[in-house]
Amino acid sequence: IRCGFPEVIFCQGKAVDHVVEIFRELASTGHNVLATRASEEMFAAIERTGEFPAARYEPLGRTITLKQQTESEPLGRITVITAGTADIPVAMEAVTTAEILGQNVELICDVGVAGLHRLLDKVELLQSSNVVIAIAGMEGALASVVGGLVSCPVIAVPTSVGYGTSFGGVTALLAMLNSCSSGVSVVNIDNGFSAAYNASIINSMIEEKN
Amino acid sequence: IRCGFPEVIFCQGKAVDHVVEIFRELASTGHNVLATRASEEMFAAIERTGEFPAARYEPLGRTITLKQQTESEPLGRITVITAGTADIPVAMEAVTTAEILGQNVELICDVGVAGLHRLLDKVELLQSSNVVIAIAGMEGALASVVGGLVSCPVIAVPTSVGYGTSFGGVTALLAMLNSCSSGVSVVNIDNGFSAAYNASIINSMIEEKN
Amino acid sequence: IRCGFPEVIFCQGKAVDHVVEIFRELASTGHNVLATRASEEMFAAIERTGEFPAARYEPLGRTITLKQQTESEPLGRITVITAGTADIPVAMEAVTTAEILGQNVELICDVGVAGLHRLLDKVELLQSSNVVIAIAGMEGALASVVGGLVSCPVIAVPTSVGYGTSFGGVTALLAMLNSCSSGVSVVNIDNGFSAAYNASIINSMIEEKN
Amino acid sequence: IRCGFPEVIFCQGKAVDHVVEIFRELASTGHNVLATRASEEMFAAIERTGEFPAARYEPLGRTITLKQQTESEPLGRITVITAGTADIPVAMEAVTTAEILGQNVELICDVGVAGLHRLLDKVELLQSSNVVIAIAGMEGALASVVGGLVSCPVIAVPTSVGYGTSFGGVTALLAMLNSCSSGVSVVNIDNGFSAAYNASIINSMIEEKN
Amino acid sequence: IRCGFPEVIFCQGKAVDHVVEIFRELASTGHNVLATRASEEMFAAIERTGEFPAARYEPLGRTITLKQQTESEPLGRITVITAGTADIPVAMEAVTTAEILGQNVELICDVGVAGLHRLLDKVELLQSSNVVIAIAGMEGALASVVGGLVSCPVIAVPTSVGYGTSFGGVTALLAMLNSCSSGVSVVNIDNGFSAAYNASIINSMIEEKN
Amino acid sequence: IRCGFPEVIFCQGKAVDHVVEIFRELASTGHNVLATRASEEMFAAIERTGEFPAARYEPLGRTITLKQQTESEPLGRITVITAGTADIPVAMEAVTTAEILGQNVELICDVGVAGLHRLLDKVELLQSSNVVIAIAGMEGALASVVGGLVSCPVIAVPTSVGYGTSFGGVTALLAMLNSCSSGVSVVNIDNGFSAAYNASIINSMIEEKN
Amino acid sequence: IRCGFPEVIFCQGKAVDHVVEIFRELASTGHNVLATRASEEMFAAIERTGEFPAARYEPLGRTITLKQQTESEPLGRITVITAGTADIPVAMEAVTTAEILGQNVELICDVGVAGLHRLLDKVELLQSSNVVIAIAGMEGALASVVGGLVSCPVIAVPTSVGYGTSFGGVTALLAMLNSCSSGVSVVNIDNGFSAAYNASIINSMIEEKN
Amino acid sequence: IRCGFPEVIFCQGKAVDHVVEIFRELASTGHNVLATRASEEMFAAIERTGEFPAARYEPLGRTITLKQQTESEPLGRITVITAGTADIPVAMEAVTTAEILGQNVELICDVGVAGLHRLLDKVELLQSSNVVIAIAGMEGALASVVGGLVSCPVIAVPTSVGYGTSFGGVTALLAMLNSCSSGVSVVNIDNGFSAAYNASIINSMIEEKN
Ligand SMILES: Nc1ncnc2c1ncn2[C@@H]1O[C@H](COP(=O)(O)O)[C@@H](O)[C@H]1O
Ligand SMILES: Nc1ncnc2c1ncn2[C@@H]1O[C@H](COP(=O)(O)O)[C@@H](O)[C@H]1O
Ligand SMILES: Nc1ncnc2c1ncn2[C@@H]1O[C@H](COP(=O)(O)O)[C@@H](O)[C@H]1O
Ligand SMILES: Nc1ncnc2c1ncn2[C@@H]1O[C@H](COP(=O)(O)O)[C@@H](O)[C@H]1O
Ligand SMILES: [Mg+2]
Ligand SMILES: [Mg+2]
Ligand SMILES: [Mg+2]
Ligand SMILES: [Mg+2]
Ligand SMILES: [Mg+2]
Ligand SMILES: [Mg+2]
Ligand SMILES: [Mg+2]
Ligand SMILES: [Mg+2]
Repeated sequence: IRCGFPEVIFCQGKAVDHVVEIFRELASTGHNVLATRASEEMFAAIERTGEFPAARYEPLGRTITLKQQTESEPLGRITVITAGTADIPVAMEAVTTAEILGQNVELICDVGVAGLHRLLDKVELLQSSNVVIAIAGMEGALASVVGGLVSCPVIAVPTSVGYGTSFGGVTALLAMLNSCSSGVSVVNIDNGFSAAYNASIINSMIEEKN
Repeated sequence: IRCGFPEVIFCQGKAVDHVVEIFRELASTGHNVLATRASEEMFAAIERTGEFPAARYEPLGRTITLKQQTESEPLGRITVITAGTADIPVAMEAVTTAEILGQNVELICDVGVAGLHRLLDKVELLQSSNVVIAIAGMEGALASVVGGLVSCPVIAVPTSVGYGTSFGGVTALLAMLNSCSSGVSVVNIDNGFSAAYNASIINSMIEEKN
Repeated sequence: IRCGFPEVIFCQGKAVDHVVEIFRELASTGHNVLATRASEEMFAAIERTGEFPAARYEPLGRTITLKQQTESEPLGRITVITAGTADIPVAMEAVTTAEILGQNVELICDVGVAGLHRLLDKVELLQSSNVVIAIAGMEGALASVVGGLVSCPVIAVPTSVGYGTSFGGVTALLAMLNSCSSGVSVVNIDNGFSAAYNASIINSMIEEKN
Repeated sequence: IRCGFPEVIFCQGKAVDHVVEIFRELASTGHNVLATRASEEMFAAIERTGEFPAARYEPLGRTITLKQQTESEPLGRITVITAGTADIPVAMEAVTTAEILGQNVELICDVGVAGLHRLLDKVELLQSSNVVIAIAGMEGALASVVGGLVSCPVIAVPTSVGYGTSFGGVTALLAMLNSCSSGVSVVNIDNGFSAAYNASIINSMIEEKN
Repeated sequence: IRCGFPEVIFCQGKAVDHVVEIFRELASTGHNVLATRASEEMFAAIERTGEFPAARYEPLGRTITLKQQTESEPLGRITVITAGTADIPVAMEAVTTAEILGQNVELICDVGVAGLHRLLDKVELLQSSNVVIAIAGMEGALASVVGGLVSCPVIAVPTSVGYGTSFGGVTALLAMLNSCSSGVSVVNIDNGFSAAYNASIINSMIEEKN
Repeated sequence: IRCGFPEVIFCQGKAVDHVVEIFRELASTGHNVLATRASEEMFAAIERTGEFPAARYEPLGRTITLKQQTESEPLGRITVITAGTADIPVAMEAVTTAEILGQNVELICDVGVAGLHRLLDKVELLQSSNVVIAIAGMEGALASVVGGLVSCPVIAVPTSVGYGTSFGGVTALLAMLNSCSSGVSVVNIDNGFSAAYNASIINSMIEEKN
Repeated sequence: IRCGFPEVIFCQGKAVDHVVEIFRELASTGHNVLATRASEEMFAAIERTGEFPAARYEPLGRTITLKQQTESEPLGRITVITAGTADIPVAMEAVTTAEILGQNVELICDVGVAGLHRLLDKVELLQSSNVVIAIAGMEGALASVVGGLVSCPVIAVPTSVGYGTSFGGVTALLAMLNSCSSGVSVVNIDNGFSAAYNASIINSMIEEKN
Repeated sequence: IRCGFPEVIFCQGKAVDHVVEIFRELASTGHNVLATRASEEMFAAIERTGEFPAARYEPLGRTITLKQQTESEPLGRITVITAGTADIPVAMEAVTTAEILGQNVELICDVGVAGLHRLLDKVELLQSSNVVIAIAGMEGALASVVGGLVSCPVIAVPTSVGYGTSFGGVTALLAMLNSCSSGVSVVNIDNGFSAAYNASIINSMIEEKN
């Protein structure tokens, strides 16, 4: 159904051999391939086959990507923004996902609401985006503040960063669902993939009309 | 910032007089006005002023709308789909919100996943939408099934419909956040307004490029 | 132990007659008296006795106060700030409590983080406070943003404002406990009294050293 | 009471020696024996005794089975269906349990609701079953969709597959308990054993009347 | 699909007029009709139409039934058993549902596990059933004890009876899901209808083979 | 205050050296000493000192005991009863605690409510106790059934045995708090020590009156 | 089994007529009768029968009692102690229950841990009790402090007093289950009846040995 | 903004190299440096650079501190008090934080409410503090008792000490939020840093006025 988009492997809980096998199968279609939640060991196994010299591993976001299609120049921009440095792994999952989906992505890190001036420095960049992905753990306030600054859709990703009452990302999730800013929707805790997928559909639909 | 869009009043927990006063203030800007979670009593008070003959009340979704701007013909389509008839109030909040935001909206009711054929009859309608808003309480499975059928963004709204372990919509919310279909994002329980706002931004951005 | 401070009645769940009786007893000590969570009916009963012509009722915060002591000019300032208008009842409980405790209080309303500029307009006022009380429901982001703007202590009060996943204030509470800004501590949901009591002790200790 | 049915050992939390000892005791009755949640180490210990050459280990579902009774040809059919490949371990616990209980079992894997056509391909197989066991993690929607397609009893097993708000299977459990399809009942998270036991009683009772 | 079975209306949250309308529509098919969670007011409205002289209201379980088909003599038996008298409304929903589905039902009340002898008096009755529906609130222990006494399937219904930590039936639900007796499956809190529907499918399938 | 009773060390989270040091200090008073949640390593360290030849380690319940006082013959009896074999560690913590407190204890294991006859065989033993400690995980039904069989106090201990919705003992705890049998009180999950301490006070007070 | 003890009716959720009927039945045995959670309306109905001139209603604890047996002089003492005045209804349920069970009860009110001196004034009274029932809502700290002061058993009753994060008594319950004082066991939220029943069994067993 | 105060590194979840790099950067400003949640390995890496001979590691509280500024003599006193020895790591995080912030800190350990006399021995010390930090796990009662003894602000820190229903500190947190003593505010579970930061701001503001 989603033509032009890659097939995706969710590696968590799969055996290394099984991942290699699915990877080979999907690659054989000639589409781009994305594997998320992939361990270094899984990538090593894929490399060892010698069949996919173009495959790349991104260790922070733990994705394997295989570009097999020449894409048209990406149009529009998705901006990924994180509250802290600890949110970067989730951000990298989002960035790599959006890129393999043929998107133009900008990453802004560590601009949490405790230091507003750092965030306000980025307002122009945010306001010129087609979609913003706001990633934060702990109190998750970034989504609301960003949502108030832009008029495009904001996709909020709670992260499992924090301790005690951060409850593995539940606090950030709840805060994001209760955002008093309009234009914010939410995906599962740590789900950088889903945020990027949503953002990519939206951006593609906006730009393909041209 | 969001020019062209109406100002909105969230009436829940506000005194009737206070609502009238804010309504008057917002109407005086010449923009469209939307009041959500409005009681019949609030609308009656607004009518009694005699100042807003064009104000309308939608009793199911409990919204007051005041159209003051002639809009260009709406482009693209937002489809609102509900699992059960009990989800209709939330759907109507979404429909009225999208309409006052100048959108073209289609409503499909009572096509829950227990009777797949009723849903499958609507596939074409769903697939020709720019955005789908999927509204369901209880087990919230509608969002995943719809998400699998369309390639446009799906905004899922859990509703507080159900009893026992539906926990006032929490079960549906959790199910939607865990959707195994790509392209689904979620808003707060019963938040038809936010779903429609998100959908309207997206649809407007898609269409305004033309 | 806390000399100079009034005795306080928590009226919720007490019979009207019982409240009047305790009020009379506390008033007889010559101290100031504060009754929180008081209904209009309770105040009417106190008025009917004819014994306390100086007693005052504040209907939003639902407090009864009786000033019986001439206080020295209040020093320093406590600033009470709310995210939305629905948080005002809790703010008023805080304001009245701080005032009967002899404090100088400033109230800033409806400056939620979705509209940052409104908040940024108040930065100077915030930064010249000895203590700030930040009151917010829903996603509770106000406490973090304010905490980042000031260097004095911030006492955060989550409110039960919102619906769905606001869970009667739990979401705001959790967000505040996870604040990434230093200098924020938290009290119970809707507990304007406790926030003001804490702020008043702190401000009094700061100023009494002079 | 349940004549013809094997005695069962739940190995989790038991010492290896203790498991061997109970296994020997139960085997000595001449009945079939089933051990669930058994580690490879436990099976190795049982093999080392040399007493049970007919004992078999199923590593995915982690069961040990010992067939000691010639059974009549199984009648009727139990169909076990899973949403994803990650649900297979729970499915295998169910399959092995049902088989040692003398049942005829069919396994259908990886037909989650995000790809309806794969599920719809299996409708006939589902509709010709006496009982269906529907196994799914994440949003647990499979149970409702299957429940709507068949008129026989559906026993739903939530699995602890997923991350973030899947909450170790709680989300799938709640979704299944709220199923809008009639004819669905639920067992504990990951409890393939109990689902198969229930299904086997039902199928046996249906068939033994002939 | 489920031929011979009535269509069902879930009345909770529906307007009286809407219920009458659906009732009329379903009745016109000539099938039996069942309405659950029906208020007396709804039944009065149905009576007022004068169209359904055979409609009956059961006030404890709050069901409306309309028998329009002559059924063959019911075979097999479903036993409904409750822990306390407060569980009777849920039991009556189950009884009426099973009866309109053409089943033979026996009701045993108030045999909670605190008085074992009362329960043990009923063992024979329980053991001669094809299916048992065990209904209990508070600690929900009845399901486990009954499950240990019978070899047929037990469908457990937690009820919202109790206070404090009964948490509206959640405690009973959790206890039932954790039953150490084999052969127990569970439905939603207070869902007498679903239990009876499941039991009726099972009993019908057992008996129709003859 | 509690003369005759030993001082107790709760070892969890303490360094081995620290435990040895406290043990030495308490032993020097001449009282009996009890250390709970003690690792084998801690006991080895205590043995290595060569100072406490009378110290004993109980590996299942993980307690170290040092008897230094000749006690009078124990009177009355405390019965400890468990639902499954997995509950035995908690039972052993209770047994060792009661014994070092000078009590006469009987242990009955693996008489869960799924096999009532095994429990009913023990009724006389239970009814001749001064206090019963009922220990169970999963659905925790044992406490209610035992509570209905005896007229002495029952102290219920939920255990963290089980998986999925046993939630680490919370389900058993809730079931026990909701017991429909009179005479049941509850202690923290896995807290065999506290149950035994309570039972020992009660039994001592009953017997010392003679 | 529990000879000498009255039969008890738990009135909550029972119809008035049903309560009268059970009351009459139990009274006819000649035993004392206790009805808990009884409304004034229920007592009025019992009075109207003219059959029970000795029946008494206690409106705070909402109990009906009927003494029909001359008891021997009560021995030993149960002390009931509450943290706040709002806990008194639960305390009165406990007091009336213990009295109808033939106990000698002392009630100490409003000695919460925020004012330690008030509690310390009562130490002697507490230490001369056979059992203490400690009743508190909010943070439930009373049980731990009392537990540290006495060597007899303490039965803790959490109450649903408080707001916000008191969660209807759950906070107090959890605090009591985690008491760092030995000798504390816990009953359900607001369950004054169960606390008194437990205390009465214990006190009776202590005293009857003489 | 917060001049005179050190910059802080929160090390949890950061790579060792990254910590060293940030440490070097912050140290280069000439301010004091504090690193919390630091492993021994991180400190070893900092030492290996040879650049920070004045850096110190506190292993219990897991902090690295670097004093680079000669401070004026500290004024006023912050008292840190813990319920148990298991709370000491959190206390040490608080102590080291307050000290690097130039404060005068006193630590009182192991004075839980189960042994009131040990706490009462410290009343004078507590009452002569400018701020008290009360640290406790399990039932968290210490905050309320201390709050009742002093008139200065109390900052309560729940710790994740305990097991079963201590729920990783949630029980202590809830108890502290519900404190019936005035003057208590709360920070996140185990957050000794935030408590000390708050206390240090308050004490500095009190003293700097002189
Ligand atoms: N990081 C992720 N989190 C959640 N879902 C994912 C993620 N990555 C991929 N998926 C989904 O998982 C599907 C593939 O699952 P599988 O067939 O189990 O490999 C994809 O189509 C995506 O919808
Ligand atoms: N995987 C499983 N999950 C839950 N219960 C089980 C499982 N396998 C076996 N059981 C139950 O555990 C009982 C045996 O427990 P035990 O005596 O502890 O070995 C069996 O009779 C079954 O009722
Ligand atoms: N306030 C109460 N809370 C909980 N259980 C109670 C209460 N009062 C009485 N009970 C129990 O309820 C039983 C009577 O229940 P019932 O037969 O429904 O009237 C008594 O035997 C007590 O065990
Ligand atoms: N133990 C702690 N718990 C929570 N927050 C902390 C802790 N230590 C430091 N912080 C905060 O973390 C910030 C530094 O975070 P980072 O930039 O990620 O190192 C500091 O400014 C503090 O506000
Ligand atoms: Mg926005
Ligand atoms: Mg899709
Ligand atoms: Mg600050
Ligand atoms: Mg079905
Ligand atoms: Mg059974
Ligand atoms: Mg009993
Ligand atoms: Mg004690
Ligand atoms: Mg105080």
